[in-house]
Amino acid sequence: MDSVNDLTLQCPIPIQQYPQVMLAHGGGGKLMHQLIERMIGPAFHNSLLDVRHDGAVFDMPHNRLAFTTDSYVVNPLFFPGGDIGSLAVNGTVNDLAMCGARPLYLSAGFILEEGLPMETLWRIVQSMRRAADESGVLLVTGDTKVVDKGKGDGIFINTAGVGAVEHSLSIAPASVLPGDAILLSGDLGRHGITIMATRENLSFESEIESDCAPLAAMALGLINAGIDVHCLRDLTRGGLASALVEISEAANYLINIFENSIPVREDVRGACEILGFDPLYLANEGRFIAFVPEAQADDALALLTAHLNGTGACRIGTVTDDRQPLVTLKSRIGATRIVDMFSGEQLPRIC
Amino acid sequence: MDSVNDLTLQCPIPIQQYPQVMLAHGGGGKLMHQLIERMIGPAFHNSLLDVRHDGAVFDMPHNRLAFTTDSYVVNPLFFPGGDIGSLAVNGTVNDLAMCGARPLYLSAGFILEEGLPMETLWRIVQSMRRAADESGVLLVTGDTKVVDKGKGDGIFINTAGVGAVEHSLSIAPASVLPGDAILLSGDLGRHGITIMATRENLSFESEIESDCAPLAAMALGLINAGIDVHCLRDLTRGGLASALVEISEAANYLINIFENSIPVREDVRGACEILGFDPLYLANEGRFIAFVPEAQADDALALLTAHLNGTGACRIGTVTDDRQPLVTLKSRIGATRIVDMFSGEQLPRIC
Repeated sequence: MDSVNDLTLQCPIPIQQYPQVMLAHGGGGKLMHQLIERMIGPAFHNSLLDVRHDGAVFDMPHNRLAFTTDSYVVNPLFFPGGDIGSLAVNGTVNDLAMCGARPLYLSAGFILEEGLPMETLWRIVQSMRRAADESGVLLVTGDTKVVDKGKGDGIFINTAGVGAVEHSLSIAPASVLPGDAILLSGDLGRHGITIMATRENLSFESEIESDCAPLAAMALGLINAGIDVHCLRDLTRGGLASALVEISEAANYLINIFENSIPVREDVRGACEILGFDPLYLANEGRFIAFVPEAQADDALALLTAHLNGTGACRIGTVTDDRQPLVTLKSRIGATRIVDMFSGEQLPRIC
Repeated sequence: MDSVNDLTLQCPIPIQQYPQVMLAHGGGGKLMHQLIERMIGPAFHNSLLDVRHDGAVFDMPHNRLAFTTDSYVVNPLFFPGGDIGSLAVNGTVNDLAMCGARPLYLSAGFILEEGLPMETLWRIVQSMRRAADESGVLLVTGDTKVVDKGKGDGIFINTAGVGAVEHSLSIAPASVLPGDAILLSGDLGRHGITIMATRENLSFESEIESDCAPLAAMALGLINAGIDVHCLRDLTRGGLASALVEISEAANYLINIFENSIPVREDVRGACEILGFDPLYLANEGRFIAFVPEAQADDALALLTAHLNGTGACRIGTVTDDRQPLVTLKSRIGATRIVDMFSGEQLPRIC
């Protein structure tokens, strides 16, 4: 794989000739060929992608694998702490990690809107490559479509991912057991607040940056250390609350969490108060929860906090033996309330 | 897997309450949950999807696999012979088949525009399920995003696919050899003309239907019969001409084709003349070319013509030993011309 430094060069498509993406860049003819051969192919260059076939063929280390996908439609495309490119790579890497898989290969499907500045596409492609390098994944197959002006919104990216499952754990909501400790990898809400603030041109005293980050090293760290991980879930759309509700519904156990154990930065809390958001529902792109046996909770927490992206990891609750699909939160003042999924739309297009 | 007949029921989301897709259907809260639990989950119901995790975990029959992706932005969404749903399944199934793989698992990423009629989504989901059943593939993981009205175009679908490679052939442009016969699986241009006619509300004497069809059975039929397949390529965007140019460039051999051996239906040819299209460049969604050794060409052709989607299969040309990346066409009147990729945009958003 080439050095990332190669990508700090200028846009490989001549900007004066093609300042913007045109419909023909998705038409299957010369311009599409040029876009792939000059920009996308070299940016992600590897022996599988270089075959330029309809797909990539490769050997997996084992027969067991994980497969996932997400589309990314975030608005704005660039925000403090990331952009749609890093989000599209980290998001799918994280979904593989939440399956307990080692992320290996990604696909990328670009839906470009006619008129997208070519430089914008180039910045995003470079960001994707850097994120892929950081997680050690290869982008091996892809597709580019262009839709007419006014029928898209600059760029949408789909990534799918394939990862190797190198253990025999069944990491899934149904594996959650009574007594499991629930660990959270760090503070909540920065991604959601960052997107909102950037979109609405709000400024806070301190700049809040998205938590967008790859989580595979942390998740695999738990597994490789012998922690009997029951479930993992990253806290994207719908935030911590929705993740817990979904898991409690699938597992059919009541989950208890404690509000004063859930870390939210002061500036994020302040922004939430001004904007009327609840941090429990805010999207994160670099946070996850892990369900582990009580006896291994301290060890697991120590493993998480040793990671750069997990320094704020903490224990936030427990799975009870009460067989109902319910999440309860004990508030700061000692009251207990039910945590539900939100109705309606809190914050559209945050990922 | 449930019977397809289950899907001819009415839309499982109450239309009176939710006649259209709303932003909240992609927001991670209750409405998104309802859309997945009532419509998408049951429509594609299988044990892997039912886990409702961030991805699917499964065992492959072998370590060697193929991985591919495509996004689908076709306009209009419904057309004679297919719709965006069947296209999204068949297109990715076909890309796997062109890698010589047996298609097994698909992902689906939906990008919905706020305001899309719920019934439209339901029709498309049903069509995807029928197409998946026809090819024996399971949709095992997915994602739904909603963008604000005016920032999309009804629905875009990305599918990625994983298939099993159960042979040791290297099926790729670089495997093409001098003397290879080039087989075409049937007549050209129906998909492109169908999309154009539907979009522009043109009518021809006979209704032209898209050739949209799954190709895996035909491709695997060749391989399983022991044909030493060198390269396979489906003829989507850019048509036969672009596929041949790409392969000749990658293989670095001059390819000769014969115009009078290339089947184009009379109604398609007439439409092309009226509209100013060249059938060589028109998109197909159920046609492919196979590069096979001369000695096996007749056997391979017999295998193709035995299939419903290959009754019109024929031999259209040969790979020469001339080491240049060039495609030449011998015309009906005996003249030879160079076939190039087209510049500009012939027909946007045909897939």
